[in-house]
Amino acid sequence: MASMNCSAGDLAQLLGPNVTNSTGAAAFICSQFQIAAGNFNATQFAVDNTYLLFSAYLVFSMQLGFAMLCAGSVRAKNTMNIMLTNVLDAAAGGLFYYLFGFAFAFGTPSNGFIGKHNFGLKAFPSSSFDYSYFLYQWAFAIAAAGITSGSIAERTQFVAYMIYSSFLTGFVYPVVSHWFWSVDGWASATREHGDLLFGSGVIDFAGSGVVHMVGGIAGLWGALIEGPRIGRYHHSGRSIALRGHSASLVVLGTFLLWFGWYGFNPGSFNKILSAYTDAPVYYGQWSAIGRTAVTTTLAGCTAALTTLFCKRILSGHWNVTDVCNGLLGGFAAITAGCSVVEPWAAIVCGFVASLVLIGCNKLAEIFKFDDPLEAAQLHGGCGTWGVIFTALFATEKYVGEVYPKKPGRPYGLFMGGGGNLLAAHLIQVLVIIGWVSATMGPLFFVLHKLKLLRISAEDEMAGMDLTRHGGFAYIYHDDDDESQRPGTFRLGQIEPTNSTTPSANA
Amino acid sequence: MASMNCSAGDLAQLLGPNVTNSTGAAAFICSQFQIAAGNFNATQFAVDNTYLLFSAYLVFSMQLGFAMLCAGSVRAKNTMNIMLTNVLDAAAGGLFYYLFGFAFAFGTPSNGFIGKHNFGLKAFPSSSFDYSYFLYQWAFAIAAAGITSGSIAERTQFVAYMIYSSFLTGFVYPVVSHWFWSVDGWASATREHGDLLFGSGVIDFAGSGVVHMVGGIAGLWGALIEGPRIGRYHHSGRSIALRGHSASLVVLGTFLLWFGWYGFNPGSFNKILSAYTDAPVYYGQWSAIGRTAVTTTLAGCTAALTTLFCKRILSGHWNVTDVCNGLLGGFAAITAGCSVVEPWAAIVCGFVASLVLIGCNKLAEIFKFDDPLEAAQLHGGCGTWGVIFTALFATEKYVGEVYPKKPGRPYGLFMGGGGNLLAAHLIQVLVIIGWVSATMGPLFFVLHKLKLLRISAEDEMAGMDLTRHGGFAYIYHDDDDESQRPGTFRLGQIEPTNSTTPSANA
Amino acid sequence: MASMNCSAGDLAQLLGPNVTNSTGAAAFICSQFQIAAGNFNATQFAVDNTYLLFSAYLVFSMQLGFAMLCAGSVRAKNTMNIMLTNVLDAAAGGLFYYLFGFAFAFGTPSNGFIGKHNFGLKAFPSSSFDYSYFLYQWAFAIAAAGITSGSIAERTQFVAYMIYSSFLTGFVYPVVSHWFWSVDGWASATREHGDLLFGSGVIDFAGSGVVHMVGGIAGLWGALIEGPRIGRYHHSGRSIALRGHSASLVVLGTFLLWFGWYGFNPGSFNKILSAYTDAPVYYGQWSAIGRTAVTTTLAGCTAALTTLFCKRILSGHWNVTDVCNGLLGGFAAITAGCSVVEPWAAIVCGFVASLVLIGCNKLAEIFKFDDPLEAAQLHGGCGTWGVIFTALFATEKYVGEVYPKKPGRPYGLFMGGGGNLLAAHLIQVLVIIGWVSATMGPLFFVLHKLKLLRISAEDEMAGMDLTRHGGFAYIYHDDDDESQRPGTFRLGQIEPTNSTTPSANA
Repeated sequence: MASMNCSAGDLAQLLGPNVTNSTGAAAFICSQFQIAAGNFNATQFAVDNTYLLFSAYLVFSMQLGFAMLCAGSVRAKNTMNIMLTNVLDAAAGGLFYYLFGFAFAFGTPSNGFIGKHNFGLKAFPSSSFDYSYFLYQWAFAIAAAGITSGSIAERTQFVAYMIYSSFLTGFVYPVVSHWFWSVDGWASATREHGDLLFGSGVIDFAGSGVVHMVGGIAGLWGALIEGPRIGRYHHSGRSIALRGHSASLVVLGTFLLWFGWYGFNPGSFNKILSAYTDAPVYYGQWSAIGRTAVTTTLAGCTAALTTLFCKRILSGHWNVTDVCNGLLGGFAAITAGCSVVEPWAAIVCGFVASLVLIGCNKLAEIFKFDDPLEAAQLHGGCGTWGVIFTALFATEKYVGEVYPKKPGRPYGLFMGGGGNLLAAHLIQVLVIIGWVSATMGPLFFVLHKLKLLRISAEDEMAGMDLTRHGGFAYIYHDDDDESQRPGTFRLGQIEPTNSTTPSANA
Repeated sequence: MASMNCSAGDLAQLLGPNVTNSTGAAAFICSQFQIAAGNFNATQFAVDNTYLLFSAYLVFSMQLGFAMLCAGSVRAKNTMNIMLTNVLDAAAGGLFYYLFGFAFAFGTPSNGFIGKHNFGLKAFPSSSFDYSYFLYQWAFAIAAAGITSGSIAERTQFVAYMIYSSFLTGFVYPVVSHWFWSVDGWASATREHGDLLFGSGVIDFAGSGVVHMVGGIAGLWGALIEGPRIGRYHHSGRSIALRGHSASLVVLGTFLLWFGWYGFNPGSFNKILSAYTDAPVYYGQWSAIGRTAVTTTLAGCTAALTTLFCKRILSGHWNVTDVCNGLLGGFAAITAGCSVVEPWAAIVCGFVASLVLIGCNKLAEIFKFDDPLEAAQLHGGCGTWGVIFTALFATEKYVGEVYPKKPGRPYGLFMGGGGNLLAAHLIQVLVIIGWVSATMGPLFFVLHKLKLLRISAEDEMAGMDLTRHGGFAYIYHDDDDESQRPGTFRLGQIEPTNSTTPSANA
Repeated sequence: MASMNCSAGDLAQLLGPNVTNSTGAAAFICSQFQIAAGNFNATQFAVDNTYLLFSAYLVFSMQLGFAMLCAGSVRAKNTMNIMLTNVLDAAAGGLFYYLFGFAFAFGTPSNGFIGKHNFGLKAFPSSSFDYSYFLYQWAFAIAAAGITSGSIAERTQFVAYMIYSSFLTGFVYPVVSHWFWSVDGWASATREHGDLLFGSGVIDFAGSGVVHMVGGIAGLWGALIEGPRIGRYHHSGRSIALRGHSASLVVLGTFLLWFGWYGFNPGSFNKILSAYTDAPVYYGQWSAIGRTAVTTTLAGCTAALTTLFCKRILSGHWNVTDVCNGLLGGFAAITAGCSVVEPWAAIVCGFVASLVLIGCNKLAEIFKFDDPLEAAQLHGGCGTWGVIFTALFATEKYVGEVYPKKPGRPYGLFMGGGGNLLAAHLIQVLVIIGWVSATMGPLFFVLHKLKLLRISAEDEMAGMDLTRHGGFAYIYHDDDDESQRPGTFRLGQIEPTNSTTPSANA
């Protein structure tokens, strides 16, 4: 909001000596304006924090969405394992991001590579950061780790998960977010000191690159080094889908992610109470936020429909879990450009995202790559497309409004904005691939060499829930019934203190 | 908020020539007021858009609620099918509503029957509409289609679903919402030009008629023309409940719908920052919104408790899925009048809604009508009751506050407001029944004649998931276990590229 | 916000007789300020109500979380039963809290023991209460009943549930909330008339004592009087875990509770638009609210991680359901002090909470106490720790800001604030234990003596869903398949009008 500034001295002079008590009158009038100015300040903070806090809660709900999506997409025997990783992504992420993750990502002034202030929320709140901003960024950080855990599901040792997850949330991801989102980041579009990359900086508004590519490429390396699950590729070379155990959980998770994405994309504005200069009175940041929700919706919807018909042609049936993945691919793609493109462009974005996902899945099959959640393909592939898409379709008007500090910025190539934004975004793609590969690749490789990465074949066949997590996730029949049935495990009774594997009762 | 209007010319004259620089002083003072006025404007838009956007997100979460309720209410073999329709209601609805649905519903000026502006969000945002309003209305539109898909679940061809769903979301529903909600609608209570219907217009605040009756009556015709599911009515005439496969999903869906209804009903105010004239300072639209949340809650709660005890008497047990349906019936009924009735009246509304639902279910059994979700009875029956209820119990005070543009409006018959509102609402009931029957009835009939509506008996027995959607929704036991069990399908391994039905392994 | 107060009379005098129309000028200027003052008022109410309403919706979503957590934690044969109690907690709670619960809790002026105004929302809204506040408090009230139903799950008659639940939500809980939260409560930190308890009053900000201890201790008595479930303790004395039927539902419920806790704790501020005096412009209640969200998060995260490693050592596996319970224990503990402690202290709180829960569970095993949800241990035990924790770690600054009406209040013992707060909190612990034991203990005992409390052994073995609630919650296989399988019940077909137990088809 515009700031009010009533100078009692000036006003007294304007009133002049004929006014009985011009100083008093001016002070009186200005004191009222000062109260108003204070009230506007408080209103600004209250409204913006309300907006950011509830957006953060929405982003947090994506973690639940992830947990359900992952749970439904794996076989029942590994459900406890994958859900535990999702809970821990949030929990360990909370501690690490508080202790140092936030500081690495946003602790300014920095050296451009990594932040170095605000460890343990030191100097909070300040004129730069309030607690709500930390909470919002934490919810983002845990999303990246969630993506990766999907790629290596059903075959990874729990200790390996704990190591790579901490490293990713605590170091790899914060550094990337520093580069592209901090006011100190070398490639940030909001960079305050020094030149913008190609005069533009990277417009990765809500993180197709920063979040989705990071999580997806980390998953790519993990899944590559681990190799496919037993049974996923027949020795004849045929690909065999190891279907998840519950489509209901997949749909539940997908809808929750959709719900939470309204915090992820429109929430990335952080503030809603901001009028645009030289704009009609009804048009302000609140409109840009609404538009961002609309572009997000349209990209996902288009990708879902495209996937529906493409998969019908390719596989012969109408498949709800494929449609869910297509939808999420559309969301991952629009995330970079959601705030700076027109709604019709979002439809283009979603359409291509669906094809990118189908193509990546084909490639994965050819190379016998196995990612139970298609996370590398979806977040890595569609995220990359989203970064490119933004550089092609960002409009001059919206770029100017959303990034107002430097006027006359480059914008989308297809919109007549030249190639600078595209150059910056190609750099972003290369840098993210390079950084994540250079950090997570060796980590997974060392874990692999130390025999800490993959579980044994016996454990994989039996399922991790039985061997590592205290039992199967589901018990639909009672012990008494079970004992009358052949060939089933009796899981209802386990003795928690002296046994890790329940005894079969046959 | 009241608008500030500081005229520097007037103020300068009031200060007069003895003031040293009266023009300057007046300009200075007025410039401060102008800043304040601008800030209030921005605040108004930011607060109202925050309110509307998060309400829209809540309404969207109802789609998830619907998906889970529907999934749990059908047999396991049709779960993939029904969930796919729920995902597509949202996805296809997003595209259609963007392309033309919104334009049909709200594109003013119109001819009173159907809107004809704002196709593809043209001329957005404007002083009339911002993106948040589109998003909110889209979330409403997809709810209607969701209702109908419940009625014809477990036996409808997927191609038929795609046809009727597009027609309903893209045309039938938008037209109805235009009539009753647009400022141009011939029966709208907010009509700006021309007379109000019976000097009143229809007070269907959040859509007991516009959304629930439309969805329910469309479902009624679909289910009537398709006929009951195989096995639902024994040849001896006895009714046999084909119970849904998961009460947990039913309860999950019901609670999510309850959660989302706080966006549906209180959210229909669209704006929260609006003081009431001649009211105490603490009393404004925010109070009316809170009261609407309370009436909604009480109607649902009362209906749930009434259903609990009635069903205990009728069936001999305490049934949670019946209680869930009763609860939803109470919500569907209070939706029309939620903003204009007293909390005690909401209790009456919920009590009767429960009886209406039980009565409709009895009728359905007598006429051998089969609706797996009770959607026609619940949304059609209780929705109709809600429209009538509003015409009986709307209070003078609340009608005046919520619809302030024309003072001295008719209100509820039982509250002393005369019969005009009731007359308008009876017209609404007749017109909605007529319009939906005249559009959806022939559509379903033509699909039926073209043999596009109902699946084959073999497919129905096997379940649509196996025959159309690539496999069963759940795999709780691993392949290895399965192979040792008699009489079960092996669903864990399907080959996605060359086969639509998995092979049995017996 | 600060209130504006423009006196036209004073201003006219200051302008004096030389101004052409000093009365007119002053009136003109003041009329503008008056408009501004009115707008600020409306803004204040709109922003605070938006904040409170959406917080209430979040708290309500915890009821869904509870339902899923409870459902997943019991055996499949009792799922319908426990979910019905969760739906009814909300529904019956809605009616009772409207009729008298709110009046008992907040109807001022009171006698200090119990409120006696505002029955049936009489005199709503007022300058003290708006509808949103009722809705928020209702969502709190139903949480307490939900906790208790977990403790006595799987063995309690439905009629007993209805009696104790009504008594708890309608009387026992409202009285406690009156004591500690009403401005009339004898031990409230916001007490307006008379002395504060130990010059301090109890700082139970969001209810570790008022909600969690009340629910937990009520559950303790219920579970003690009922005794353990059949099979829970072997005659040899060995403890046998009767595992819940779905870990997916447990994780779903836990995440939903986490999500909702952001309404529970930060929402307890009720208002967000409030600047702090003598503070930097960016620092106000919005910061305190954000900090509360952060302390809540950190306490839960720490408790989850602590539980993970402790249980790994104790039981030999990584257990997701134990981690979920640990997480919730951390939340229950931080609830009292969330607004008045530093983030680092929240980590201490969560760490100890995890140990408290593990200790309480050990004690429960030793005493052969059976609580299927660990609700007495979790909410009672960790809730008690939370009350003590607050009295040790509350900081002077935050206590002064959050409870500003009386300056120089006692604060945490370890922070140098003396022992008065601890004394008050020890009184709170004793009084809650005493009051709940004196009311709920005898109630459960009388129900027990009247043979209304526990179901028969036969019913317990068969499961309550079959015997009382119309059938099993899940049907994963179709009737036709079922009939070919030995030893399974045929649950797909039940005849609702003349039979409560389905026939076996063997």
